[in-house]
Amino acid sequence: MKVNPTYERSLEIHLHGPGPSDVPEEVLRAMSVPTLGHLDSEFIRIMDETQAMLRVLYQTKNRMTIPTSGTGSSGMETLVANLVQPQDKVIVVINGVFGGRIADEVSRFGAEVVPVDLEWGTTVTPDEVREVFSRKRCEVLFLVHAETSTGAYQQHMREIGEIVHQNGALFLVDTVTSLGGIEVKIDEWGIDAAYSGTQKCLSVPPGLSPVTLNERAMEKVRGRKVKSWYFDLGMIERYWNEGHQRKYHHTAPVNMIYALHEGLRLVLEEGLDTRFQRHRKNAAALQAGLQALGFTYLVRKEDERLPMLHAVYLPDGVEEGKLRTEIRSSYNIEIGGGLGKFAGLAWRVGLMGYSSTEDKIYRLLNAIGEVFKKHGIASDRAAGSQAAKAIYKDPERPG
Amino acid sequence: MKVNPTYERSLEIHLHGPGPSDVPEEVLRAMSVPTLGHLDSEFIRIMDETQAMLRVLYQTKNRMTIPTSGTGSSGMETLVANLVQPQDKVIVVINGVFGGRIADEVSRFGAEVVPVDLEWGTTVTPDEVREVFSRKRCEVLFLVHAETSTGAYQQHMREIGEIVHQNGALFLVDTVTSLGGIEVKIDEWGIDAAYSGTQKCLSVPPGLSPVTLNERAMEKVRGRKVKSWYFDLGMIERYWNEGHQRKYHHTAPVNMIYALHEGLRLVLEEGLDTRFQRHRKNAAALQAGLQALGFTYLVRKEDERLPMLHAVYLPDGVEEGKLRTEIRSSYNIEIGGGLGKFAGLAWRVGLMGYSSTEDKIYRLLNAIGEVFKKHGIASDRAAGSQAAKAIYKDPERPG
Repeated sequence: MKVNPTYERSLEIHLHGPGPSDVPEEVLRAMSVPTLGHLDSEFIRIMDETQAMLRVLYQTKNRMTIPTSGTGSSGMETLVANLVQPQDKVIVVINGVFGGRIADEVSRFGAEVVPVDLEWGTTVTPDEVREVFSRKRCEVLFLVHAETSTGAYQQHMREIGEIVHQNGALFLVDTVTSLGGIEVKIDEWGIDAAYSGTQKCLSVPPGLSPVTLNERAMEKVRGRKVKSWYFDLGMIERYWNEGHQRKYHHTAPVNMIYALHEGLRLVLEEGLDTRFQRHRKNAAALQAGLQALGFTYLVRKEDERLPMLHAVYLPDGVEEGKLRTEIRSSYNIEIGGGLGKFAGLAWRVGLMGYSSTEDKIYRLLNAIGEVFKKHGIASDRAAGSQAAKAIYKDPERPG
Repeated sequence: MKVNPTYERSLEIHLHGPGPSDVPEEVLRAMSVPTLGHLDSEFIRIMDETQAMLRVLYQTKNRMTIPTSGTGSSGMETLVANLVQPQDKVIVVINGVFGGRIADEVSRFGAEVVPVDLEWGTTVTPDEVREVFSRKRCEVLFLVHAETSTGAYQQHMREIGEIVHQNGALFLVDTVTSLGGIEVKIDEWGIDAAYSGTQKCLSVPPGLSPVTLNERAMEKVRGRKVKSWYFDLGMIERYWNEGHQRKYHHTAPVNMIYALHEGLRLVLEEGLDTRFQRHRKNAAALQAGLQALGFTYLVRKEDERLPMLHAVYLPDGVEEGKLRTEIRSSYNIEIGGGLGKFAGLAWRVGLMGYSSTEDKIYRLLNAIGEVFKKHGIASDRAAGSQAAKAIYKDPERPG
């Protein structure tokens, strides 16, 4: 069998889908540092620093803040396997693919799903949350902070957290697409446990899921016979055991943790406020550009649109898959297709982490404009990038 | 918070523990190739090639041969979550830590464990397997091919496979430490499903678990409501869907798959027979060296000792942890401590994949010899490496 090495291929694609996002050179370089043993003293230092940086990002004091050894969805499974018991009633807000995935996961672990089914592209209100709790005693509420299938941005997090706690329940949150791109305030919002992914706004390759759990959640975990060996946080806690003896559980994905360590270092070097502002400013520019090209947003309320993920309906007459493939092959740009109900109807354009810059937005809008012009969908190929440029020049715009 | 990048640190350690093993430069380089989307056509080509190479290594025609998105133990959880049902009776051979781990895993998924408890350092005989089946009707037999906690090498795989099938059961095997170091003949031995790790004899960083399942096993999986979302092979199969439409399940760990792809390419470039012979030859040299320094093997039968993992009792008077730490800090060499029953009593010395070379064996034996001399445990610091050298010069020795 004759196989060529990956490093001899030309694989530089600009990533503007729903993740992975472009990975900075420094992160790729960190990833290729020689592997250390998973109990090596130098590696333990890297683990400690990774935890400390993750806490800053999650705005939490939670001791149990670690990357689990799998991609984003492994964080979901970790939370459900450890915190949801059979016979629990779990409120799941379903306003897109990822809420639906959580419901599927919860039901696999034998608990009862109490769904809050919403129109896709909307988010849940505090009143709706109050209403479900008044109808039924539930042990957990689970929602998605940034719904990657619709681009919807859940608001009122602190108020929802208060309602959940007034009802004695646990508040679990998917922050896969939000962490590193918008505020995620674990402690202030009363989130008991959350998970994320590395390949979205952290701009680290996929492969780890940062999770954080507070003491209230960890007290439920310890001593419990968790229905997963791989994700058993009681055992994993004894490995990520800052300042104490480490007990081997499974071999940590050492080089992926190097990559996350470097990705977090770059996030903190930029500063959270600066980073969030950058995402907002670039989002405003992209939005103006996409609208100028005839796209319309799935999420109708402007303040509920995520800055890092733009889910948009295509103008009439656009063959979704064909044009997306053309942009990939002619311009080396990846854009995401619609997911779930929106398959074939929408694009998902990502501006996550390192992929969210002024230059990249022009390249992206120009490519779409040229393909639209070629296929007779738009008359002015530069309409998108000019609309974006106007935003950057307007001192009154957000950012 | 001030954190230094990992690539500015000095982290070159020679890995002679029970894994991870030394990673070749080419694999580290492949890992730092820019990230592609998990549905990108170029990445799909890399996935297809990875599957094809894994099949060669596993000596199987199984279509379902893929890396799962977690470290070695995630392969164990994948097999159990998909193939073990509550109320199943599962024979688990327990002759070390990893057999015990399988038993723990099986019981978490609600099945009954039928343990074959053996003295650690021994392996199971076909007669013992026959005996358990004659006592009890069981649906599965699960064993560890290469027990990393004791260095025991399970023999009679084909005969055991036949007995398992005569009893209508599934034959599941842990090949974490064996794959790429010794023969693993999935089809010839009648193994229905197996899993491995990347960080042992493949010399790829930890982070993936190659698994393989035959059609008989996959027929049980499809349509079943698996008690794991993340490891549900029915859904994962539609993503790793060679030659057909790919259905997104979770975002694959793209750069880890680059690394595995390159690691497999190097294995096949060397050739399986050459590689296995290299492991055997170097094992004979290390064994002579360790014995010359006063170590004795946990596994008493010589033909049941693994070539890639040498678990040895220390000579009298050696403070296990202290000397191991000294070898790490003074010589930048990692050696593993004993695990489970052997904690504090034994060392585990790995010669896995890229770590198994003549040069590295001399460096290792010289380091141990010098530390032993310094602490008055050995009089001749070169005794180990001289004994190893004699093996390489002896044309009659294995290899």
